[in-house]
Amino acid sequence: MLTVGLLGAGRIAGVHATAISSHPGSRLVAVSDINAAAAAKLAAHHGAEARTTDAILADPGIDAVLIATSTDTHSDLIERATAAGKAVLCEKPVDLSLARALACRKAVSGNGRPVMIGFNRRFDPNFAAVKAALVNGEIGKPELLSITSFDPAPPPVAYIKVSGGLFRDMMIHDFDMANFLMGAAPITVSAVGSSIVDPAIGAAGDVDTAVVTLTYADGRLAVIKNSRRAVYGYDQRVELLGSEGLLQAQNMLENTVVKSTTAGVTGAKPTYFFLERYMPAYAAEWAAFVSAVNAGSALPVTLDDGVAALAMAEAATQSAKTGSSVNLAAMMG
Amino acid sequence: MLTVGLLGAGRIAGVHATAISSHPGSRLVAVSDINAAAAAKLAAHHGAEARTTDAILADPGIDAVLIATSTDTHSDLIERATAAGKAVLCEKPVDLSLARALACRKAVSGNGRPVMIGFNRRFDPNFAAVKAALVNGEIGKPELLSITSFDPAPPPVAYIKVSGGLFRDMMIHDFDMANFLMGAAPITVSAVGSSIVDPAIGAAGDVDTAVVTLTYADGRLAVIKNSRRAVYGYDQRVELLGSEGLLQAQNMLENTVVKSTTAGVTGAKPTYFFLERYMPAYAAEWAAFVSAVNAGSALPVTLDDGVAALAMAEAATQSAKTGSSVNLAAMMG
Amino acid sequence: MLTVGLLGAGRIAGVHATAISSHPGSRLVAVSDINAAAAAKLAAHHGAEARTTDAILADPGIDAVLIATSTDTHSDLIERATAAGKAVLCEKPVDLSLARALACRKAVSGNGRPVMIGFNRRFDPNFAAVKAALVNGEIGKPELLSITSFDPAPPPVAYIKVSGGLFRDMMIHDFDMANFLMGAAPITVSAVGSSIVDPAIGAAGDVDTAVVTLTYADGRLAVIKNSRRAVYGYDQRVELLGSEGLLQAQNMLENTVVKSTTAGVTGAKPTYFFLERYMPAYAAEWAAFVSAVNAGSALPVTLDDGVAALAMAEAATQSAKTGSSVNLAAMMG
Amino acid sequence: MLTVGLLGAGRIAGVHATAISSHPGSRLVAVSDINAAAAAKLAAHHGAEARTTDAILADPGIDAVLIATSTDTHSDLIERATAAGKAVLCEKPVDLSLARALACRKAVSGNGRPVMIGFNRRFDPNFAAVKAALVNGEIGKPELLSITSFDPAPPPVAYIKVSGGLFRDMMIHDFDMANFLMGAAPITVSAVGSSIVDPAIGAAGDVDTAVVTLTYADGRLAVIKNSRRAVYGYDQRVELLGSEGLLQAQNMLENTVVKSTTAGVTGAKPTYFFLERYMPAYAAEWAAFVSAVNAGSALPVTLDDGVAALAMAEAATQSAKTGSSVNLAAMMG
Repeated sequence: MLTVGLLGAGRIAGVHATAISSHPGSRLVAVSDINAAAAAKLAAHHGAEARTTDAILADPGIDAVLIATSTDTHSDLIERATAAGKAVLCEKPVDLSLARALACRKAVSGNGRPVMIGFNRRFDPNFAAVKAALVNGEIGKPELLSITSFDPAPPPVAYIKVSGGLFRDMMIHDFDMANFLMGAAPITVSAVGSSIVDPAIGAAGDVDTAVVTLTYADGRLAVIKNSRRAVYGYDQRVELLGSEGLLQAQNMLENTVVKSTTAGVTGAKPTYFFLERYMPAYAAEWAAFVSAVNAGSALPVTLDDGVAALAMAEAATQSAKTGSSVNLAAMMG
Repeated sequence: MLTVGLLGAGRIAGVHATAISSHPGSRLVAVSDINAAAAAKLAAHHGAEARTTDAILADPGIDAVLIATSTDTHSDLIERATAAGKAVLCEKPVDLSLARALACRKAVSGNGRPVMIGFNRRFDPNFAAVKAALVNGEIGKPELLSITSFDPAPPPVAYIKVSGGLFRDMMIHDFDMANFLMGAAPITVSAVGSSIVDPAIGAAGDVDTAVVTLTYADGRLAVIKNSRRAVYGYDQRVELLGSEGLLQAQNMLENTVVKSTTAGVTGAKPTYFFLERYMPAYAAEWAAFVSAVNAGSALPVTLDDGVAALAMAEAATQSAKTGSSVNLAAMMG
Repeated sequence: MLTVGLLGAGRIAGVHATAISSHPGSRLVAVSDINAAAAAKLAAHHGAEARTTDAILADPGIDAVLIATSTDTHSDLIERATAAGKAVLCEKPVDLSLARALACRKAVSGNGRPVMIGFNRRFDPNFAAVKAALVNGEIGKPELLSITSFDPAPPPVAYIKVSGGLFRDMMIHDFDMANFLMGAAPITVSAVGSSIVDPAIGAAGDVDTAVVTLTYADGRLAVIKNSRRAVYGYDQRVELLGSEGLLQAQNMLENTVVKSTTAGVTGAKPTYFFLERYMPAYAAEWAAFVSAVNAGSALPVTLDDGVAALAMAEAATQSAKTGSSVNLAAMMG
Repeated sequence: MLTVGLLGAGRIAGVHATAISSHPGSRLVAVSDINAAAAAKLAAHHGAEARTTDAILADPGIDAVLIATSTDTHSDLIERATAAGKAVLCEKPVDLSLARALACRKAVSGNGRPVMIGFNRRFDPNFAAVKAALVNGEIGKPELLSITSFDPAPPPVAYIKVSGGLFRDMMIHDFDMANFLMGAAPITVSAVGSSIVDPAIGAAGDVDTAVVTLTYADGRLAVIKNSRRAVYGYDQRVELLGSEGLLQAQNMLENTVVKSTTAGVTGAKPTYFFLERYMPAYAAEWAAFVSAVNAGSALPVTLDDGVAALAMAEAATQSAKTGSSVNLAAMMG
């Protein structure tokens, strides 16, 4: 039984708390949050205790911590938790600053504790099936990857301002998906972006619509499309052209009902947003973490993966400003 | 908090136990089974006690019982449980004998306790969406209903022999679906059937493939197709033609991945069988029961619904033998 | 070069005239019609002559005639044309009277001239692909066939009155499709029908919505659904369950465009009616006729096929009245 | 009746000859080709004469010429034909050299004769339906366009060497599609490409897989993906995200048959290549040309459109080499 401390009690922490409680091999022991009332409420709901973060990290009876606090605390908490001997699952991104993330990676590299970054989409059954088919050789050698990732509606501009920008906040999931499916980091990153959905997002220095192209050492190519607004719901698709075929992961729909009338043939919309779409992925992610920690085996997503995606976000941010492609290796220092 | 005793500890009882435990408004108190070890195991898994059925029914601290025992015990247990003041959710069918089911209905008619029959498919989000669209007038007046219901593989012949036959054991779900969607009982029932999947099923006196047509007082028609074998998985579809359009509930698929190769464009198979397909429906069914019992409001599926479906099964069994349509009202005595 | 006389100059004759003219191996020589102006116009459009039927049949320079006149003239014209040595392609149905069709078959049985009945749907590329996959063993042994065939809108009641009724006029196509796909005639025919689309159709003694079930000697089953009204367009689908899988021919759509909005995900409607859907089938039907006549090989659809479908229509008409299944062999005298 | 001279007698000229002959308002009078035998054969098939190009251009009885010769002759023939007073429909591209195309445009700008460039895909019913829905405001304001355009198999390297490269030879169709759907030329063009399908293509100085991103003055973005090889067939899709929804034109399939087996649910492949997919588009293109010439109205695709697409191809070729985006206006001199 893996005993777990949860750092953070916000919305996504609640999702993780349910995954921890529902898993037969893990038990939620304690929850901390800067909002003590939120921690108390979430802890009570799961039969756990509200504690301070310090108390959780100091408790030798806690095997692992799940970090679901605000992004600016991730690097510090990863360093402190691993130093305290905990296994760590940390929400993405590692940090908004690539330099800080690289320093974090260096800091924890010696202590040997497992650190997994919460790129939950790798555990989505559809994307996982694409990966499995690819590994199984079902489309031969991959050549051209396309990722479509649209949110249903933009967040408030106040959030945009502290988010690190679309490439770090939103597309980072897609950078990791590219790394997951391609099994390698790209050589170059080229980006274009604009604030066509909401000019206020542009005024805040960010883009809301973007296209990034990636090139790989062996000639493969990838393209990622992001928009902060798809009014029909959360649009999360992947397609991968290979030498012997094409793999596509299509959207999950709210239901399978189709209505044919004089107006056309109408089906349900995609599931609305990430909680609806990725709830099974969060459970599978947690199960994979528990399984790897218990077995002492390799984690399915590592701190290196978190750093790699962040470097791509930083490269894309730079490319969108200059109009030139950016060499990724140069970003890593 | 609704306190619940579970009668039965087999596979489907396990599904219900999870639904009861997971629901925030209900608590599983006790489990009984003729196999005491099975009851003990299931009870322990959910923090409940293993007891005798008598003890469960006699416990004034138990509000409701869920009957998931073998079909031949359903009528007796419904009568005993309601007499003991319990609210009842009983698995389908009410009985293999229409006469016994009618007697049960008569026996419990006076005691005022709520009895719901477990036609779980009404709670499937896809079929529920068809019903909602219909009620919402989205295809005008319904005219022609088609239900396709194929199991992935036939059960053992030993099961067939005690099952009551395809019409009572398998198509009874579809009879209830017809009643649910059409909102009325049919006037006539006509059936054809054969044992083309497995001659041993025919030798046991049953059919494995059947088509039933229903006619309604207002001229509407319905057709139900059953097969005990669809090698590609559990095929559960409904379509309803109305004066202003068509509604179709299509299969749920294992994932959304599509592969295009020289061999064609291939997607995932339907979810394999009823546990995969209808797990969310079992939870929704239980939630509807809890809600109605707590509110003292009308149950979404009643004992009358269970009797009606059974009468249709009996009519179909008779029609398949004679080649003539059977008037349903005549079946009800 | 097959020289052709076309009997009839109505709408469907026009479709055939185009097929004849466009085929590199056939030439339209003459057109006849009781409406001389219509014959003249159609003939002129295709560089042919308007003549009387007598003149066409008497012309030794004409190899084949295509009969696209009113149904009540089909049997006579088949007899006269074959007696005159012509190869014949005759529109369905052979006749409204099974007795007359049987007599026609007897009359022409000795003269050795090829007579093909125009069941164009056998040449639809989608249904032909189902047949090919079936013959190729791709779903193992067929067990349960379903045919859905809905017209977009009912014809005028004046037409209904002379049509011979839904089973002879509309479902006869589906009877032939069943014969085509199952490769055998059924043993029994059971029908239910009602006039729920338009009471005036009922007042005229016909039904507008019907379901027919067929049983076969080897235990196979089939079901055919017809409606005179599907407001979303011409709904023409087939599905066939076999021991190793399911084959479905779905509707052809007006285009492949899909629109996702807050209202759902909407695609195009099915092609509107038989001219849109089956235009390629008419050309393929004609090509098959030319090819068989030139080669002296077996026709893909025969007068026997026409008689068989008509017998099923007569059986269904009778069954819908009595509520009992009808033995098809008994219909054939 | 528009009288037409056809310059060229190759495969695509044959497609056009059929379109000209089948159209009720046009007549093919003469065909020329450097291969006199080919011209004679094609002319004979359509009841036309084989002539020299000079003779065709000098014939005052010929209203229009369709130029389907090799690309390096297009500009000269456009200039000569318009000078001779002919209306012109010229196959794409205008030229491999943007400078030559610009000179051609200048040369013909004064003579007032209509010149249409054969971007046939604008006339594909699916893409045309996307445009119509867009114009109709069905997805609000367009924001992000994606074009997927994969050929089934790469051409011989000998062809690659004289083709002008993927951007001028293949993606030029997609550049025009972008211009068609976006209704404006982009500001910048950025390209990445590689020769991962066949290294011999790289050795010949070309790419076989490429991604191009376009930015527009008002903040809209577009991305085009090309591959010379999709083993499952011709993959021709478009999707356009707007402020109120998404429009997608999906592939046309060989048939609508779906097979469900233990291996999954398999449908037909896309129609194989451009002749299968775009045959209706060629006929519609010709009809639009005839209609505009007869009416003296604006052509649906102009020489300007041909020049604009060529400029984008030249910009993409340059960007793929430098890794920097190219300002399109600068290309136009």
